[in-house]
Amino acid sequence: MSIDTAELPDPEGPEDRPAPAGNPGWLSDDELSFVRGRLPVVYVEAVPVRLDGLGQVIEVGLLLRSTPDGVMTRALISGRVRYGETLREALFRHLENDLGPMAFPQMPTALVPAQIAEYFPMPGISSFVDERQHAVSLVYVVPVTGTCNPRQDALEVSWMSPEEALAPDTLDELPGGRGALLRQALSTVGY
Amino acid sequence: MSIDTAELPDPEGPEDRPAPAGNPGWLSDDELSFVRGRLPVVYVEAVPVRLDGLGQVIEVGLLLRSTPDGVMTRALISGRVRYGETLREALFRHLENDLGPMAFPQMPTALVPAQIAEYFPMPGISSFVDERQHAVSLVYVVPVTGTCNPRQDALEVSWMSPEEALAPDTLDELPGGRGALLRQALSTVGY
Amino acid sequence: MSIDTAELPDPEGPEDRPAPAGNPGWLSDDELSFVRGRLPVVYVEAVPVRLDGLGQVIEVGLLLRSTPDGVMTRALISGRVRYGETLREALFRHLENDLGPMAFPQMPTALVPAQIAEYFPMPGISSFVDERQHAVSLVYVVPVTGTCNPRQDALEVSWMSPEEALAPDTLDELPGGRGALLRQALSTVGY
Amino acid sequence: MSIDTAELPDPEGPEDRPAPAGNPGWLSDDELSFVRGRLPVVYVEAVPVRLDGLGQVIEVGLLLRSTPDGVMTRALISGRVRYGETLREALFRHLENDLGPMAFPQMPTALVPAQIAEYFPMPGISSFVDERQHAVSLVYVVPVTGTCNPRQDALEVSWMSPEEALAPDTLDELPGGRGALLRQALSTVGY
Repeated sequence: MSIDTAELPDPEGPEDRPAPAGNPGWLSDDELSFVRGRLPVVYVEAVPVRLDGLGQVIEVGLLLRSTPDGVMTRALISGRVRYGETLREALFRHLENDLGPMAFPQMPTALVPAQIAEYFPMPGISSFVDERQHAVSLVYVVPVTGTCNPRQDALEVSWMSPEEALAPDTLDELPGGRGALLRQALSTVGY
Repeated sequence: MSIDTAELPDPEGPEDRPAPAGNPGWLSDDELSFVRGRLPVVYVEAVPVRLDGLGQVIEVGLLLRSTPDGVMTRALISGRVRYGETLREALFRHLENDLGPMAFPQMPTALVPAQIAEYFPMPGISSFVDERQHAVSLVYVVPVTGTCNPRQDALEVSWMSPEEALAPDTLDELPGGRGALLRQALSTVGY
Repeated sequence: MSIDTAELPDPEGPEDRPAPAGNPGWLSDDELSFVRGRLPVVYVEAVPVRLDGLGQVIEVGLLLRSTPDGVMTRALISGRVRYGETLREALFRHLENDLGPMAFPQMPTALVPAQIAEYFPMPGISSFVDERQHAVSLVYVVPVTGTCNPRQDALEVSWMSPEEALAPDTLDELPGGRGALLRQALSTVGY
Repeated sequence: MSIDTAELPDPEGPEDRPAPAGNPGWLSDDELSFVRGRLPVVYVEAVPVRLDGLGQVIEVGLLLRSTPDGVMTRALISGRVRYGETLREALFRHLENDLGPMAFPQMPTALVPAQIAEYFPMPGISSFVDERQHAVSLVYVVPVTGTCNPRQDALEVSWMSPEEALAPDTLDELPGGRGALLRQALSTVGY
């Protein structure tokens, strides 16, 4: 399968869905563009996993997204934290957005994440690049127990063994250095 | 309620239940006594909790145990790791022993625990005392989703709010410094 | 000692010091005010500590600040992460700002912090309140090995034993719920 | 370089050095052999690293050991925790044993390690194998600031970049699955 990671869709472009009127957390295109050039943006990211009966990770879920021009790319669950929104609310919102309402994620009990990732628009500052913004991301490994039905623009959640997920070919399909991030997140659960 | 923590039962006294013949992990009284004086013993401990829909801890479970002479004492879930047994197996075994088969604990995805506790038979070396042994304990916060039916010698699992669990009176009812350990474990989930 | 925590100075008011011209990370008063109402702001915080030879925390440093109207208040080291700045750079900048250039902090090897704190301008959403903004803060315990000479507006770094730092009277002197945060941070190092 | 990892020396064989008379933590060959077959043994392991001024790991130290029959093998710093010894004391003792008295390690402030490793004598139970014993190991990343002069049987501490340390050829030179452990430990510091 050919996966072009050069052009990424903005999965939230500009915002995943409008918030109720008057919610200061929802930003217009212009506002989002302005603040993205002034402040690091807080993100949450999640690696969905399936567990055996003793809590060992046995499967890893990766999103398969198509860009506006039809190119496929792999992704973690990822999205920004809005003004006034707690980290737990943001994480749950993005899990539900990307996995559907029947995924039944086991939300983390601790806010301290598995990994912290820093994204910069310019390469070379950290391991991770996001052309849109400077983002500081809290990355969680999140077990899901239900059925995943991703929203429209994520065509598929593909489940694979940790070994398959960590194969160099798979890691390379995650853009912006997120292959290394997936590897770091899975190392916290023994891989 | 008056709770005397001076005399503790050995909840495993000497071993919670016999292992199949030939299992080197099960030790006779004499063997256990010998090795306990030669090596630090590996323990797992768990603080059972209940969560709201976003993963926030809303209730904490404490065991209420009666000593052989009828005195009540509070306890965390706690037990040693046997030779040949994985940490996950030991944690699950002790959770099932103390909470029953219908507790449905959410086993941790990562082996790195919320806290490490060192117990010594003599006070003053660390914050924690265990008159029976030198133990190194891996302490986890474990959400349970089902119904808890403790085995016979633990009369009750009492559920309380995190604030009640952290009240000085409650913490004092945990022997051997385990009140401080409960406080440390709950601080990892935001309390 | 009477410490009024009702009115806090903005220790960065509006920004601790100007950045070089053209640095998009430095914001004017109006810009900072605008973005603070639109996005959660990324913060780093640090609890400075002194260690014994085996790495055990034996002293905790708390800043003693005077507000513009002369009231004293205790504080952790704390400040925002600028656009384009790494977390390590921000942490080091704020440590140097508040402890002086001869403090020789032992910077953390891992970016995953001891605790994550969420501040909201309105009370009740999380444990922590910051009237100025919604902030997501990464909190580190940072050993210092040198001599601390705080900048002008922090009159003093007072060093005390962990027990003194955790006394209810001391914790109450930290505004916005930061007493609980100090307690949580020190629990990761065994207190 | 040809490195045979099939036959490993016991770096403590049977014990690194005698303890003072009457110390129950020191075991004779027979005693150590007996307890090793009855209980999991507590270990500490360390990955020595060098940092830049902001705390980023820039070099990784690996021990180069020769077996009794002259074969070279790579190793992490590793050793058991004795009866009555704290984890900090054991970690410091093994660091000094393997790096010499002038290494000036920055001991960890928190006891919670970067990774937990379980070793079993029989392969297939966990990722890690130790033919001598069932061990539960707490693995730390430890910055050193001084000069390393290993004791006699470790011929060399070789320093290399994180990228070199993580090269498959280097990881393969660590026996018993410890290559994966080194990878997991370095992922906690951003690699």
